[in-house]
Amino acid sequence: MPERVGRYTLNLPSRPGVIGYAAVVGKNEGEGPLGEEFDYIYQNASAGEDSWEKAESVIHSNAVTRAISKAGLSPEQCDIIFAGDLLSQCSGTCFGVRDIGIPLMGVYGACSTMSLSLAAAAFSTETGCVNAAVASTSSHFCSAEKQFRMPLEYGGQRTPTAQWTATAAGAAVIAPSKGKVRIEKIIIGRIQDYGIKDPNNMGAAMAPAACRTIADFLSDTNTSPSDYDLILTGDLGAVGSKLLIELMQKQENIDISAVHNDCGLMIYDLKKQKQVGAGGSGCGCSGAVVCSNIMRRIENGELKKVLFIGTGALLSNISSLQSETIPAIAHGVLLTGE
Amino acid sequence: MPERVGRYTLNLPSRPGVIGYAAVVGKNEGEGPLGEEFDYIYQNASAGEDSWEKAESVIHSNAVTRAISKAGLSPEQCDIIFAGDLLSQCSGTCFGVRDIGIPLMGVYGACSTMSLSLAAAAFSTETGCVNAAVASTSSHFCSAEKQFRMPLEYGGQRTPTAQWTATAAGAAVIAPSKGKVRIEKIIIGRIQDYGIKDPNNMGAAMAPAACRTIADFLSDTNTSPSDYDLILTGDLGAVGSKLLIELMQKQENIDISAVHNDCGLMIYDLKKQKQVGAGGSGCGCSGAVVCSNIMRRIENGELKKVLFIGTGALLSNISSLQSETIPAIAHGVLLTGE
Repeated sequence: MPERVGRYTLNLPSRPGVIGYAAVVGKNEGEGPLGEEFDYIYQNASAGEDSWEKAESVIHSNAVTRAISKAGLSPEQCDIIFAGDLLSQCSGTCFGVRDIGIPLMGVYGACSTMSLSLAAAAFSTETGCVNAAVASTSSHFCSAEKQFRMPLEYGGQRTPTAQWTATAAGAAVIAPSKGKVRIEKIIIGRIQDYGIKDPNNMGAAMAPAACRTIADFLSDTNTSPSDYDLILTGDLGAVGSKLLIELMQKQENIDISAVHNDCGLMIYDLKKQKQVGAGGSGCGCSGAVVCSNIMRRIENGELKKVLFIGTGALLSNISSLQSETIPAIAHGVLLTGE
Repeated sequence: MPERVGRYTLNLPSRPGVIGYAAVVGKNEGEGPLGEEFDYIYQNASAGEDSWEKAESVIHSNAVTRAISKAGLSPEQCDIIFAGDLLSQCSGTCFGVRDIGIPLMGVYGACSTMSLSLAAAAFSTETGCVNAAVASTSSHFCSAEKQFRMPLEYGGQRTPTAQWTATAAGAAVIAPSKGKVRIEKIIIGRIQDYGIKDPNNMGAAMAPAACRTIADFLSDTNTSPSDYDLILTGDLGAVGSKLLIELMQKQENIDISAVHNDCGLMIYDLKKQKQVGAGGSGCGCSGAVVCSNIMRRIENGELKKVLFIGTGALLSNISSLQSETIPAIAHGVLLTGE
């Protein structure tokens, strides 16, 4: 049974495990440093569909189907799917998993969705009444730009702090007490809002939320950064990662610099792929990185303890136009080797 | 611990209970048949804010704060909040609960959100590691019209099948093994899509989902409609309710007509309040009806077993413009007396 550790962290004593995972990405992501690790790479952003939104659904569906298949299961054998995405009304998810037929608990955590869905899936299997739970998410550069910023056709210039929404989806199947990658602890975050208003600087908006959740987790578990091989944030990018390390140091007196990395920095080569600006973002960024490179490295023993902190900016497509600040949240899962 | 009953239903043996609940509504809802049951009625749709979206956040926040207060708790004593709404990026929720400081698990189920959040909250408390979980949702007529249909200023005519999105929020606080209203069983639904494309006929889109979940629940628990005082759907309205009863009869050979009612039919007087068309809809419709009238009638013994089936149409603000059909989902909770 799940048990509380400290104020915010939950321990999952049976250590639910990942029995299948998949990452499906677009061309840009396929050309990045992790290209060879992904299960499928779309060469065309449309994925054969006539809208960006439909393309995202197809990519989401592809990742879910592959993860279930790699787990050696059929959809009918999955008890529940926790899934969400960035599109309005989570349409990447709703249309993406529509035909799969698994009971759906839609979750919303913006770009933190992979950690949120993994946490929920692990929590549910820990109770013993779920034999297999799917966790998934997706994002698409073109659907996100259209929704949050400008239509691509506008050809707007990007600020140096702007991140590149990954065209990507990640999915994992969680089962009780088995798998080479285990989910040992989870933490659900609290909203942090430091008054950032610039929707072209998500890293700055999200860094405080990552800081809060990491500090809460370390305090709850009475551990320090050196106890982890990797503290992996979702998609802070170059700007947000720098801010996080500073914030952790100044506000919490904790130095995570030796073990920190960020999915938004891993998915692209920022020097070669200049267009990505400050790095990757979007639900699918951490979804695809975690459900490929990270899971594999835990499986083969290269990484033993990874604290994955998904980060989400909770702005809406109109809140910034209404001069609202950008609240952010970060949820965490502790991934450990078998 | 939660235990599986049949294929889709989960039994919660400790019967988590509702220890506080609140419903906050707009003027129209206040003038409806349940007007006297609501905790607070806004006389102005703006709720003192300068946008409809901000107004919805204020209403959401008000309901959550009242429910926690009525439970005799402070926000710090609540371990988690499960919340969501209809607005893009769940902004009614994200901005509504931003300052409350409770760990947030955002959920998305469109208008089924009240049943989804109640199910998640009850499930989490059943495990013993959550002392108090909040479930909440909201909707606002003006923000929903602007987002899904036409700006109000357009003055478009409404079809006879169109429903009226309730300006309303509902919230409940769930705790283990106490409270006069208990959550005994939960069921997470599967998406159903019967090919309905008309966003002005949500009832028709959602009726198949309600049918599926009710039939699954009755089959899993080996019960029949006569075992319940009330089978309460979320917001099918007049058109969807009629279709549900027909579908249940023809497709499942189950007659629910004697015990069925719908929150969308309860919240307004369809004869007097002509503007509401086929009845109420929106996350806040079932949120406010359940977190007032229904909870009260269970508390005072008038109702003993209520199967509440929240219904959600999973269209997005652009999916219908792209000629997509409207997938729908329904989640259920069995509410019983102490």
